[in-house]
Amino acid sequence: MKTQTLLMPLDMHLHLRDAVMLENVAPLSAYSFSGAIVMPNLVPPVENRADVIAYKERIMAAVPNDYFEPYMTLFYKNYDKAFLESVADDITAIKLYPAGITTNSEGGVSSFDIEEMRPTLQAMSDMEIPLCVHGETDGFVMDREAEFMSIYELLATNFPKLKIIMEHITTKEAVDMLDKFENLYATITVHHLILTLDDVVGGMMMPHLFCKPIAKRPEDLDALLTVALAAHPKVMFGSDSAPHPQHKKESCGCAAGIFTAPIALQLLCEIFEQYDKLNNLQAFVSDNAQNIYGICPEFKEVVLEKRPFVVPANYSGVVPMYAGETINWAIESID
Amino acid sequence: MKTQTLLMPLDMHLHLRDAVMLENVAPLSAYSFSGAIVMPNLVPPVENRADVIAYKERIMAAVPNDYFEPYMTLFYKNYDKAFLESVADDITAIKLYPAGITTNSEGGVSSFDIEEMRPTLQAMSDMEIPLCVHGETDGFVMDREAEFMSIYELLATNFPKLKIIMEHITTKEAVDMLDKFENLYATITVHHLILTLDDVVGGMMMPHLFCKPIAKRPEDLDALLTVALAAHPKVMFGSDSAPHPQHKKESCGCAAGIFTAPIALQLLCEIFEQYDKLNNLQAFVSDNAQNIYGICPEFKEVVLEKRPFVVPANYSGVVPMYAGETINWAIESID
Repeated sequence: MKTQTLLMPLDMHLHLRDAVMLENVAPLSAYSFSGAIVMPNLVPPVENRADVIAYKERIMAAVPNDYFEPYMTLFYKNYDKAFLESVADDITAIKLYPAGITTNSEGGVSSFDIEEMRPTLQAMSDMEIPLCVHGETDGFVMDREAEFMSIYELLATNFPKLKIIMEHITTKEAVDMLDKFENLYATITVHHLILTLDDVVGGMMMPHLFCKPIAKRPEDLDALLTVALAAHPKVMFGSDSAPHPQHKKESCGCAAGIFTAPIALQLLCEIFEQYDKLNNLQAFVSDNAQNIYGICPEFKEVVLEKRPFVVPANYSGVVPMYAGETINWAIESID
Repeated sequence: MKTQTLLMPLDMHLHLRDAVMLENVAPLSAYSFSGAIVMPNLVPPVENRADVIAYKERIMAAVPNDYFEPYMTLFYKNYDKAFLESVADDITAIKLYPAGITTNSEGGVSSFDIEEMRPTLQAMSDMEIPLCVHGETDGFVMDREAEFMSIYELLATNFPKLKIIMEHITTKEAVDMLDKFENLYATITVHHLILTLDDVVGGMMMPHLFCKPIAKRPEDLDALLTVALAAHPKVMFGSDSAPHPQHKKESCGCAAGIFTAPIALQLLCEIFEQYDKLNNLQAFVSDNAQNIYGICPEFKEVVLEKRPFVVPANYSGVVPMYAGETINWAIESID
């Protein structure tokens, strides 16, 4: 039987939420990943050292039986240098949201005034704290990411030593930025390696495939697949796995977010095998991230096997992508 | 108080369904419209004279108290001339669906082979039976209508005397066709004069705003508004009001269709007033259709008044557009 071994898989963009939801979903990521960049968009957001430490403790308490490193992030605000120095050892990155652009982002940046942001971003650059960015404007839904490219350019050219991660990219335009600016990197989700808008609203309307940024056009999918399958050294896997209670997905006004954490590695094997690129999966799912972030996760070996696996209908009330459907790879063992 | 009088309003694209749903929704259209082009995509489709007559009788039985003319249509197949002659007096148009493109369209046209279709289309042209077309390919959801323009061109140039109605157009490309080909006409829905894809999936995912063709880009909305507000003589109002039971809209895999019949005239007043074009609404909602189809509905006068109106949460289990929200015009009287 065909198998694939992955060492220290990393999820470089993960939503673990808090309280009961945290307790439900954190073990699922901790089971198969060595670590994850944990998003700070709680209510209220994670925005000081005490928040970071307390949230990390709650995460660790939720995953007592597995080795799992939560790489903590702060919610971006215009912090001063002294504050950043006080918190630098406790965080791996700072996450910037444009205000109101996605779930729990109301306190984000409302105008990209580089001079107002300069002290913070220059300090982050000096301290080598990466900036993770949700790169969307408030424009038309299919144009939001492409329109944000001018802001990435502004950030990248003003802070050439700052590592800037374009999170969950979905467009050809974002892919093209990787080779234009040395300090731009990207995460790509597994669902954006599968979906286009056709899957979301082309047949029936599919709430469990609805996320932000929304899946785009076929030519965008092609561009994402090209760099992911090649394990372009500036791209990393980040699931953006986003759990919502079932009733918030299956109602009028469905919340954005696709829950993939427990099936992400299986789906990645399926995609990379389909294109005969399994030999690049290790780099996409761990090595590139280690190089970009300079992190060294402890040893974890995940062996996946090519065999039919029926995705559960839900995990503690959270409906995953492909709920009830059969996928072609399963996790065989974890050491 | 501001009022607007509309004479003989016509809905040139309407789904009345059958059985209990027909009984629930037909009175709502019959109340405020003089007549409607009734779509034939029942299960099974309306495809012979007996079907047409029986369906018309069921419609009339469902609206005993109002004057209302159901303009009947046949589901397009490659019919022979003798058949068309036998049914011509009982129908107003024939509706063509590409196979599988929307609700109950499985028996539609699977390839646009003009020579195979020529006997039917030439006979329709000779008999002056208009051809109504759901103009979408099976391509990417945002491109389907624009891709269909080459088929409209093929139909329009091969059958220059055949009146071809581009149904529920949603794109600038379709609008542009109106002035390119003398025998192309169009219906426009009220929801496509309001929505873009942003409203459907730009914030939360909104099942009651999900329809086919899906609402497109802002520049498409602008193009549709331009010809509708000007009451371009080749465009007519057609609601494409499409009732589904609430559970089929509010579930994983929501069915396509927006239910607007009972609020269409109110919304049209609101839109036309907003752009100071109320003087063109009579042409858009009736006169153009009378001229294009050569029909003469009996007298009906609908007076609308500018005052807040709370849209009901549902009509016999069918959730309308803007359910529970307040719109700015209401029906005042009907004679």
